[in-house]
Amino acid sequence: MSGNSFGTLFTVSTFGESHGSALGCIVDGCPPGVPVSTEMIQAELDLRRPGTSRHTTQRREPDEVRILSGVFEGVSTGAPIGLLIENTDQRSSDYSKIKDQFRPAHADYTYWHKYGIRDYRGGGRSSARETAMRVAAGAIARAFLKEKGITIRGCMTQLGPIELGMTDWSAVHENAFFCAEPEKVPELEAFMDKLRKEGDSVGARIRVEADGVIPGLGEPVFDRLDADLAKALMSINAVKGVEIGAGFDSVSQRGTEHRDEMTPDGFLSNNAGGVLGGISSGQPVVASMALKPTSSLRLPGQGIDVHGNPVEVVTTGRHDPCVGIRATPIAEAMMAIVLMDHYLRHRAQNADVRVDTPDIEKARRQQED
Amino acid sequence: MSGNSFGTLFTVSTFGESHGSALGCIVDGCPPGVPVSTEMIQAELDLRRPGTSRHTTQRREPDEVRILSGVFEGVSTGAPIGLLIENTDQRSSDYSKIKDQFRPAHADYTYWHKYGIRDYRGGGRSSARETAMRVAAGAIARAFLKEKGITIRGCMTQLGPIELGMTDWSAVHENAFFCAEPEKVPELEAFMDKLRKEGDSVGARIRVEADGVIPGLGEPVFDRLDADLAKALMSINAVKGVEIGAGFDSVSQRGTEHRDEMTPDGFLSNNAGGVLGGISSGQPVVASMALKPTSSLRLPGQGIDVHGNPVEVVTTGRHDPCVGIRATPIAEAMMAIVLMDHYLRHRAQNADVRVDTPDIEKARRQQED
Amino acid sequence: MSGNSFGTLFTVSTFGESHGSALGCIVDGCPPGVPVSTEMIQAELDLRRPGTSRHTTQRREPDEVRILSGVFEGVSTGAPIGLLIENTDQRSSDYSKIKDQFRPAHADYTYWHKYGIRDYRGGGRSSARETAMRVAAGAIARAFLKEKGITIRGCMTQLGPIELGMTDWSAVHENAFFCAEPEKVPELEAFMDKLRKEGDSVGARIRVEADGVIPGLGEPVFDRLDADLAKALMSINAVKGVEIGAGFDSVSQRGTEHRDEMTPDGFLSNNAGGVLGGISSGQPVVASMALKPTSSLRLPGQGIDVHGNPVEVVTTGRHDPCVGIRATPIAEAMMAIVLMDHYLRHRAQNADVRVDTPDIEKARRQQED
Amino acid sequence: MSGNSFGTLFTVSTFGESHGSALGCIVDGCPPGVPVSTEMIQAELDLRRPGTSRHTTQRREPDEVRILSGVFEGVSTGAPIGLLIENTDQRSSDYSKIKDQFRPAHADYTYWHKYGIRDYRGGGRSSARETAMRVAAGAIARAFLKEKGITIRGCMTQLGPIELGMTDWSAVHENAFFCAEPEKVPELEAFMDKLRKEGDSVGARIRVEADGVIPGLGEPVFDRLDADLAKALMSINAVKGVEIGAGFDSVSQRGTEHRDEMTPDGFLSNNAGGVLGGISSGQPVVASMALKPTSSLRLPGQGIDVHGNPVEVVTTGRHDPCVGIRATPIAEAMMAIVLMDHYLRHRAQNADVRVDTPDIEKARRQQED
Repeated sequence: MSGNSFGTLFTVSTFGESHGSALGCIVDGCPPGVPVSTEMIQAELDLRRPGTSRHTTQRREPDEVRILSGVFEGVSTGAPIGLLIENTDQRSSDYSKIKDQFRPAHADYTYWHKYGIRDYRGGGRSSARETAMRVAAGAIARAFLKEKGITIRGCMTQLGPIELGMTDWSAVHENAFFCAEPEKVPELEAFMDKLRKEGDSVGARIRVEADGVIPGLGEPVFDRLDADLAKALMSINAVKGVEIGAGFDSVSQRGTEHRDEMTPDGFLSNNAGGVLGGISSGQPVVASMALKPTSSLRLPGQGIDVHGNPVEVVTTGRHDPCVGIRATPIAEAMMAIVLMDHYLRHRAQNADVRVDTPDIEKARRQQED
Repeated sequence: MSGNSFGTLFTVSTFGESHGSALGCIVDGCPPGVPVSTEMIQAELDLRRPGTSRHTTQRREPDEVRILSGVFEGVSTGAPIGLLIENTDQRSSDYSKIKDQFRPAHADYTYWHKYGIRDYRGGGRSSARETAMRVAAGAIARAFLKEKGITIRGCMTQLGPIELGMTDWSAVHENAFFCAEPEKVPELEAFMDKLRKEGDSVGARIRVEADGVIPGLGEPVFDRLDADLAKALMSINAVKGVEIGAGFDSVSQRGTEHRDEMTPDGFLSNNAGGVLGGISSGQPVVASMALKPTSSLRLPGQGIDVHGNPVEVVTTGRHDPCVGIRATPIAEAMMAIVLMDHYLRHRAQNADVRVDTPDIEKARRQQED
Repeated sequence: MSGNSFGTLFTVSTFGESHGSALGCIVDGCPPGVPVSTEMIQAELDLRRPGTSRHTTQRREPDEVRILSGVFEGVSTGAPIGLLIENTDQRSSDYSKIKDQFRPAHADYTYWHKYGIRDYRGGGRSSARETAMRVAAGAIARAFLKEKGITIRGCMTQLGPIELGMTDWSAVHENAFFCAEPEKVPELEAFMDKLRKEGDSVGARIRVEADGVIPGLGEPVFDRLDADLAKALMSINAVKGVEIGAGFDSVSQRGTEHRDEMTPDGFLSNNAGGVLGGISSGQPVVASMALKPTSSLRLPGQGIDVHGNPVEVVTTGRHDPCVGIRATPIAEAMMAIVLMDHYLRHRAQNADVRVDTPDIEKARRQQED
Repeated sequence: MSGNSFGTLFTVSTFGESHGSALGCIVDGCPPGVPVSTEMIQAELDLRRPGTSRHTTQRREPDEVRILSGVFEGVSTGAPIGLLIENTDQRSSDYSKIKDQFRPAHADYTYWHKYGIRDYRGGGRSSARETAMRVAAGAIARAFLKEKGITIRGCMTQLGPIELGMTDWSAVHENAFFCAEPEKVPELEAFMDKLRKEGDSVGARIRVEADGVIPGLGEPVFDRLDADLAKALMSINAVKGVEIGAGFDSVSQRGTEHRDEMTPDGFLSNNAGGVLGGISSGQPVVASMALKPTSSLRLPGQGIDVHGNPVEVVTTGRHDPCVGIRATPIAEAMMAIVLMDHYLRHRAQNADVRVDTPDIEKARRQQED
């Protein structure tokens, strides 16, 4: 209840600070029989890992995950799954200079007012490092969903001023940016090189979508599928906006333009982003999120110290100039966690429901194959 | 846990369908001693009520609220507050024609797949009518927050293609649109009149903000203040996007531009929207939401029926051509509920915390007065 | 989260004070398709109603329940079910004398320290009247369980010094005491008449059991079926002890005596009370609870007033001399709520589980039929 | 939500199986500034540890705890506290014989029906080993409570037929039984030696109490302090009954006998066990629990196998002949966790409450000093 858990039936609870001895999480509520392995989780973690290209922080963490419980002979047992990653690169000398300073756009000022205790070694719980455990937990959710025919994918759709299309999803894991328009990768690299030279940072937009979702996931009123997705994505470090389907474009749309007409062979458009009245329609569930530019810059900025005096802040540590670059696997993980949670909730309540009306999107998918 | 409750320490649980006999809610977790009265709640409800201008649905509901418990001699007692609004206008003949039809962009298709039961009288839980209870509960939260110096206000910032400024907050309750730029009201009226004549609908953007927030509200990691706000706003009918502070504009901002520099006399900007690392900074908490255009149109659209056959759908009932017009009080209510919940959570955990560092925004506010 | 809700997937949230205008509750998480009617709920309420014999309080409340939502054409829809009972007998003149007094063994001293606000009209939330809504909610849970072959029954097994057997379950609703040994009813009546004359009160023991439970309900570790039952029963007014199966007799049992041996035709005994490792075994789930004697007595007792001064307290209102007499339906209701909640939790997590091992108790039950 | 977490604001979530690689837990919601150290937690763990006398299982686990997060420079930071104990003694050859057998009075039959997966190496989550993490988490709760003047102690009050008094609390940690009547220790030892020789086991009764509790802890209706205590204690392995205050003795008490009269210098008795209307009165909070005899016996008993065939079961592993012997620290830990949770909940809701009425028990305690 202190904000370190997510989900109702499928719950992920994380612990660990960026400069502490380890990160860990408990994944509770995974049904028995789901295939879970260290390798599977490690593969997802490696996608998010920093230090794999020159465009992300050079902090190097092997991020080797151990499964401590809840898995026996390759499958989940129904018991809580304990995951652990020991921190190996805990260097924090970079931070010592700013021990008494509050950096602009950082969480240290707000944490200090909240807790009155300062772990000056680093970002603590506000560090992006915490998201490693979300990716690990998400890998388990994805394994469950895969067995139900639900798959999740994401990509970057904007880096600073550069908009990116989705012309080739197969390219996403072939470049450092999770970019699905491979022709634009050189432009992205040039942009980032210039930015790094200037000492500045930039924001990004990430899109994530789920295919094969059955109709009926999500609860009406408060725990809508889209509301839980909004919370899940907004809870990722640096995220400042979330859209479902047409998102903010809906504002200037007409009703006749926005409404997704239905035919026996599927919906004719997907402005809804796969969610109607908070409940999945069977269409792809589509969400986007905006990430702000990193605030740890070597260009000086005005801050204050713990006594309230003005200070000039310069951050010299190892930081991502664009946190959005590594955010795609995290967004995918959070979407997986939300969908799995709602899948379990749906079957708790509606296990006895049988309707004759066809799932029109399933019909469409089968036609496509 | 079935999605009809919101909040952890301050919880709002609603019930009631648009065409049932009553709407109600339980507001649990209100501390003792908060001034609560029928009049106070009714005043907020009247702002949201339909039928008060020609631009909203002509369904007329007096929406008279009764306080059934939890209030004694004008103040809350600490016991759960039961609220009830009897439905008086339950006419549903308008809907009978579409008993077996699924209308495009409505929740009836998804509800049917989820529950397998159809209350063909109306939108049921997916109706905007449900939000009346949120406004009622929000009035209680606002009364609590007011005692702590926290106030909330909202306005429409865009209607279809028309962008609206915030030149005069005092005008918000003087027009049907919650518009804070009164000069533009005639343009809005002309636009809506034309739209209604055409039989079409349009989206809107609403902004809501809280002033006087203390630093420290919100939990790191998952239950961030901004994440809970995102869920709260996305849970409102027809909302497709949520932004905190600079929102999607953050994508193309540079770090040097986005970061809100700090001085002893306050922050120099508010791109963060008052939230850093998921925790309030003392700055105004600012959020925006995008509402899609209403889907109930008298212009025909393609749908299917319960047997999967194609049908042409025409909706002839009484509907809002822009659900965004009445959404401002709902957004304010949800923000109030989120802030009160986090206020209580904060004092549970951090009641003993005392820091010497000044609240720089409080300093700024005091200078302004 | 303020203690007025029970359950995780099937949740019951109550509101209303004994001397307020109404009692109500929201039953959330009831799957669609469960037969629910006013008559069915009213029948359960009538069993608990006071004033039906000379042995209970003469306060007369018709306790007429209204279903406000969540039910359409005789079955639940999946939406939250709102229930309401208007209070008609709100006389509170009896209480005015003790407005500033704290009565021994009452909750007014503890409520006062907790809330600092006093609704001197009556017991408020601590009144046994609150349990009416539990019985109403329990009726819905029982309707669900009945469809799954699970039935619940209870009886009084001790009144003060008089121990009662279970020789004839059909007699339980034929006497005022929910006594399953009808020969002892005259002794109970004589005992109660004498007690009432003396102005004193007495405790009681109630037993409740569920038959037809499938194996697998309950979660290991904290949310064990027996742990949740213990909470559910201990949350009933005046309850001071809870036992599962052999209960406190287990203390002096040997392992060879306590362990319930298993055969292909069922267990050979039921010391476990149907729960092993927190999970149902398929045997009858058996629980007992101890209720303390009523504290509202016309025999004077020492108390204090709000200023801390000693006072002699005499209670002259209408009170039950044995709250246990009306407690059986409440215990049954709470057991039903717990079982339904765990039934839903079980199918959320374990819907895919199939084992070949027979349910040995089902085998036994089928042999008996 | 799968039963591996306890508490609302102060939450303890555990993972780990008896024969897995490690046990762990997350303690979330601990306010910042509470003194927490490995030594402090280890000291509590050592009290519960098996193998320290001939009367408990000879399985030897050093149970060395590591604090992985949430503590900096000797105090809690407000972040979740991750705790880990690596399993070193994972021998499971003892169990291999019973791989396909269901042992009477064990959880393996119920787990099998629930999960359909069998970790035949040992008890898994149903093992008493899981309780190590409760003791560790309880140590943190006790540190918090101590700062508020609240202390917790427990002792054994019955072992099989032998009833034990509380003549000397200082003796509790001087014998293997947590017995507060040291004169009876030789009798206990003789009894246990005989029992072990016979191959049988026996039950026990444990009493636990908290002193210095402020009035006002606990929520009315469902989340009563006594109801949460009942759940907490019933969730401990082998517990079959829970009492608060006079417990089952209340059944035969008269109201004039049971009610605890009040004077300006304190209550005159404590039949209530420190809880009135579900809320603490300031008196010592007193609870008792009954533990069943261990079911792992080398005396043969009837069971079945996974195919439903009858088998004769003999358990030859290392087991406690009386699980109650090591249960006292676990009961203390659970009481500490419940009290801390309610302390935080109380201050969230009622931080502004001030009453002039004296806390009569505080007055009494001060007189005693």
